[in-house]
Amino acid sequence: MDSVSIIGMISVITAGLTIAIGSIGPALAEGRAVAQALSAIAQQPDESATITRTLFVGLAMIESTAIYCFVVTMILIFANPFWDHAIAAAGG
Amino acid sequence: MDSVSIIGMISVITAGLTIAIGSIGPALAEGRAVAQALSAIAQQPDESATITRTLFVGLAMIESTAIYCFVVTMILIFANPFWDHAIAAAGG
Amino acid sequence: MDSVSIIGMISVITAGLTIAIGSIGPALAEGRAVAQALSAIAQQPDESATITRTLFVGLAMIESTAIYCFVVTMILIFANPFWDHAIAAAGG
Amino acid sequence: MDSVSIIGMISVITAGLTIAIGSIGPALAEGRAVAQALSAIAQQPDESATITRTLFVGLAMIESTAIYCFVVTMILIFANPFWDHAIAAAGG
Amino acid sequence: MDSVSIIGMISVITAGLTIAIGSIGPALAEGRAVAQALSAIAQQPDESATITRTLFVGLAMIESTAIYCFVVTMILIFANPFWDHAIAAAGG
Amino acid sequence: MDSVSIIGMISVITAGLTIAIGSIGPALAEGRAVAQALSAIAQQPDESATITRTLFVGLAMIESTAIYCFVVTMILIFANPFWDHAIAAAGG
Amino acid sequence: MDSVSIIGMISVITAGLTIAIGSIGPALAEGRAVAQALSAIAQQPDESATITRTLFVGLAMIESTAIYCFVVTMILIFANPFWDHAIAAAGG
Amino acid sequence: MDSVSIIGMISVITAGLTIAIGSIGPALAEGRAVAQALSAIAQQPDESATITRTLFVGLAMIESTAIYCFVVTMILIFANPFWDHAIAAAGG
Amino acid sequence: MDSVSIIGMISVITAGLTIAIGSIGPALAEGRAVAQALSAIAQQPDESATITRTLFVGLAMIESTAIYCFVVTMILIFANPFWDHAIAAAGG
Amino acid sequence: MDSVSIIGMISVITAGLTIAIGSIGPALAEGRAVAQALSAIAQQPDESATITRTLFVGLAMIESTAIYCFVVTMILIFANPFWDHAIAAAGG
Amino acid sequence: MDSVSIIGMISVITAGLTIAIGSIGPALAEGRAVAQALSAIAQQPDESATITRTLFVGLAMIESTAIYCFVVTMILIFANPFWDHAIAAAGG
Amino acid sequence: MDSVSIIGMISVITAGLTIAIGSIGPALAEGRAVAQALSAIAQQPDESATITRTLFVGLAMIESTAIYCFVVTMILIFANPFWDHAIAAAGG
Amino acid sequence: MDSVSIIGMISVITAGLTIAIGSIGPALAEGRAVAQALSAIAQQPDESATITRTLFVGLAMIESTAIYCFVVTMILIFANPFWDHAIAAAGG
Amino acid sequence: MDSVSIIGMISVITAGLTIAIGSIGPALAEGRAVAQALSAIAQQPDESATITRTLFVGLAMIESTAIYCFVVTMILIFANPFWDHAIAAAGG
Repeated sequence: MDSVSIIGMISVITAGLTIAIGSIGPALAEGRAVAQALSAIAQQPDESATITRTLFVGLAMIESTAIYCFVVTMILIFANPFWDHAIAAAGG
Repeated sequence: MDSVSIIGMISVITAGLTIAIGSIGPALAEGRAVAQALSAIAQQPDESATITRTLFVGLAMIESTAIYCFVVTMILIFANPFWDHAIAAAGG
Repeated sequence: MDSVSIIGMISVITAGLTIAIGSIGPALAEGRAVAQALSAIAQQPDESATITRTLFVGLAMIESTAIYCFVVTMILIFANPFWDHAIAAAGG
Repeated sequence: MDSVSIIGMISVITAGLTIAIGSIGPALAEGRAVAQALSAIAQQPDESATITRTLFVGLAMIESTAIYCFVVTMILIFANPFWDHAIAAAGG
Repeated sequence: MDSVSIIGMISVITAGLTIAIGSIGPALAEGRAVAQALSAIAQQPDESATITRTLFVGLAMIESTAIYCFVVTMILIFANPFWDHAIAAAGG
Repeated sequence: MDSVSIIGMISVITAGLTIAIGSIGPALAEGRAVAQALSAIAQQPDESATITRTLFVGLAMIESTAIYCFVVTMILIFANPFWDHAIAAAGG
Repeated sequence: MDSVSIIGMISVITAGLTIAIGSIGPALAEGRAVAQALSAIAQQPDESATITRTLFVGLAMIESTAIYCFVVTMILIFANPFWDHAIAAAGG
Repeated sequence: MDSVSIIGMISVITAGLTIAIGSIGPALAEGRAVAQALSAIAQQPDESATITRTLFVGLAMIESTAIYCFVVTMILIFANPFWDHAIAAAGG
Repeated sequence: MDSVSIIGMISVITAGLTIAIGSIGPALAEGRAVAQALSAIAQQPDESATITRTLFVGLAMIESTAIYCFVVTMILIFANPFWDHAIAAAGG
Repeated sequence: MDSVSIIGMISVITAGLTIAIGSIGPALAEGRAVAQALSAIAQQPDESATITRTLFVGLAMIESTAIYCFVVTMILIFANPFWDHAIAAAGG
Repeated sequence: MDSVSIIGMISVITAGLTIAIGSIGPALAEGRAVAQALSAIAQQPDESATITRTLFVGLAMIESTAIYCFVVTMILIFANPFWDHAIAAAGG
Repeated sequence: MDSVSIIGMISVITAGLTIAIGSIGPALAEGRAVAQALSAIAQQPDESATITRTLFVGLAMIESTAIYCFVVTMILIFANPFWDHAIAAAGG
Repeated sequence: MDSVSIIGMISVITAGLTIAIGSIGPALAEGRAVAQALSAIAQQPDESATITRTLFVGLAMIESTAIYCFVVTMILIFANPFWDHAIAAAGG
Repeated sequence: MDSVSIIGMISVITAGLTIAIGSIGPALAEGRAVAQALSAIAQQPDESATITRTLFVGLAMIESTAIYCFVVTMILIFANPFWDHAIAAAGG
């Protein structure tokens, strides 16, 4: 196998696994936060504004780790420096 | 094996595993959020409007991680730059 | 092994595993939501209409991740671009 | 090994594993839903009609993911396009 | 190894694993449902008829996933199209 | 290795693993059901007849999945069609 | 390696693993049932006769799955048809 | 490697693993039963005779699965028919 | 494979896995902290300012471990000293 | 590798793993029993004699499974019939 | 593969895995501590100063284990004595 | 590789793993027993003498399984009969 | 591969894994202790001095196990006797 | 690879893994004991002397299993009889 095939093959695998594995943690964490928010609203309806605001800040923090993974996945597919080098080397 | 076969083979595997693994977390998280929403409605029926609205925002956030995986799967099947390169190289 | 065998073999494996793994999460999540819905109805019978409606929306959201997997499985079996390419290349 | 053997061998393995793995999640989920339904009936006998109806809708939703797996298994055994192609190629 | 040995070997392994893995989920689920039914009867003896009837419907649903696995196992042992093809090809 | 050795070797492994793995689920499930039955009798002694009867029906259902595995094990040891074919082919 | 060595080697491994794996489930299940029986006796001493009788029936059911494994182990060591065939073939 | 080495090597591994794995389940189960017995005695001191007797019967049942494993281990070390055959064949 | 391909291939894999695995822990931990914060606000609304402030400090600490992983990932993709050395050596 | 090396190598590995794996279950079980005994003494100080006696009988039963493993380990190191045979065969 | 490639390749893998695995424990532990701190503040608002101070000392202790991992990662990337030796040896 | 290297290599691995794996169970069990002892003392200070005495007997029993592992480790490092034989054979 | 590469490669892997795996247990244990300390302060503010002091002694004990791992990691990187020997042998 | 490299390589791996794996159990166990001690002090401040003393004895017992692992690690690095033999043999 030549270098282009190897780098391409590995990039495909890694891109998929990165977002697949990386979405498990954030999804479960968001599910937990949302579930607790609903429970808190049911328990203390008068504070629903504070609860909702805190929830959204928290969800944004949690979502950030999922977005790290998505960014790395997109870099590996569309702006992969190793692939660019291999293409340039193969075409040189 | 030539380069086209390798990239194709790997793309098929990765596409399937990405959506399969990536659907576990969001599904479980949505199940937890929905279950808690039902419990909250039963506990505080008067707040069902607020609870339902918060639930839908939360489900949208959680679903987003599943959609990241689905997008990557579709890119790997139908707009795979590595595959396009391999086809072009093989046909060149 | 020639290219057609490889792509075919991998497609069969991936199709099966995708739907098998991808059905675990949604099934468990739906089981949890349904169980909680039954508990909520028993606790607050007067809200059974609201509970049932919220349950069905939630089940639809959860089922969507299972359907993502089913769609990818069907694409891999019946509309697989990599397989089509391999067949065309082998027949060319 | 020739192409027919490979595709056949892989189809057998995949067919078995798909239904075996795919039955774990739905079975556990249905067990949970049924158990909760029985608990709900014991707690609120007057709502047994509503509970039973909701249970059956939920079981149908959960069973659907098991049926996805069963359908894929049957396709892989009796209507496998990759196998048909291999047979045709070997017999051609 | 010739094609007949391979298909036979794989069919034996798959048949055994399918029913072995496939019996874990239904068995645990039935155990949970039965345990809850006994608890419900002890809690609400007057509803034992309703509870028992719902239990049996639920057990039938759960058993169905075990039966899917058993059917696939039997097909793989006694009506395996891949094995029939291999025998025919070897004897031809 | 000749075909007879392979089929024999695989049959031995599969027979053992099928009953070994297949006995875990039913045993745990029966343990749970029996434990809950004892708890229910202690809680509601007057219903011990109903509880015992429901328990035995449930145990029969759970034991059925263990028996599926035992049947497949016995078939693989004493009525294995793949082994019969290999013996016939080797002796022919 | 000749056929006799292979069948013998595999039979030894399988015999050991079958009883080793197969004793985990029944042991844990019996432990659970016995523990619950003791708890039930402490809670309702007057029903100790009924509890003990139900316990013994349940233990017999659970032990049956361990005995399935033990029987298969003994068959594999002392009445193994595959080994008998290999010995006969090697001595023929 | 000759046949004697293989059978001997495998027998050593299997003997060790059988008793090692096979002691986990019974040990945990006995620990649970003993713990519950102590709790029951503390709760109902007047029934300590009944509790102790039931405990010992239960421990004997659980210990039986450990003894199955020990018996198989001893057979594999000191009365192994496959080893006897290999020795006889090598010395013949 | 030459040195450039190896280093590139390994860097791609490691970059993806580092952020994927490294996002699981922080995401779950943030989900837990946010959920508890919402619960605390519902329980003690008057302290929401203190709770929110403590929450944000804690989230920053937890996020720091995710950022360690992201920094290492970015170093491996865009400022990898091993890759720079390999490129220089290959171009020398 | 000659037969003596193989048997020796395998005996070393198996001896270590047998006692290592075999000590997990008994240790955890004894920890549970001791912990419950302390709890029972704190709850019912007047029965400390009965509790202690039952505890020691139970610990002896649990320890017996650890001793089975220790005995097998010692046999494998100091009275290993397979090793004795290999030494005799090599020295003969 | 020459020595420089091997050391470089291994250093990349190890650097990534060290920080990835090493961030799981501290993140979860900090999440637990923060969550409990919020709960404690809600329960005893008057002690929020003591609680916050103890929390920060504890977080510093926990963060130290993550920092150990980060230090090792940085050493492996930027001050790796094995890599320095390999470069010197290759350039010598 | 010669026999001395093999036996030495295996002895090193086994010695380390035996004590590493073998210390997990006893450590956790002792932690549980100590924790429960502290709880019992807090609950029933007057019985602290009985509790402490029972705790120490229990800890000695649990520690014994760790000591089995330590003894086997020391035997494998400093009094290994297989190593002694290999040295003698190599030096003979 | 020569001896220097092997020892170096293995030392890098082991150094990273030792601190990575070795930081999981202490981090989780410290998180648990800190969380419980905060809970104890909230419950008994008057004893915060005793609690804090006991906490710090406990954290020091737990941190010691992490430091064992860190020490071994540093020895493997900067004072590795096997590496020193390999360098000396290669340079001799 | 010569004997010195093998023994050295294995010793490095084993030394690291032994202390890494061996620190998980004691760390978690100490965390549990410390946490319970803090809880006990909060519950019964008057007994803090007894609790603290019992805690320290227990921590010493638990730490002993970690020290077993540390001792074995140090022996493997600095007083390894197999390495000494290999060095002597290589230098002889």
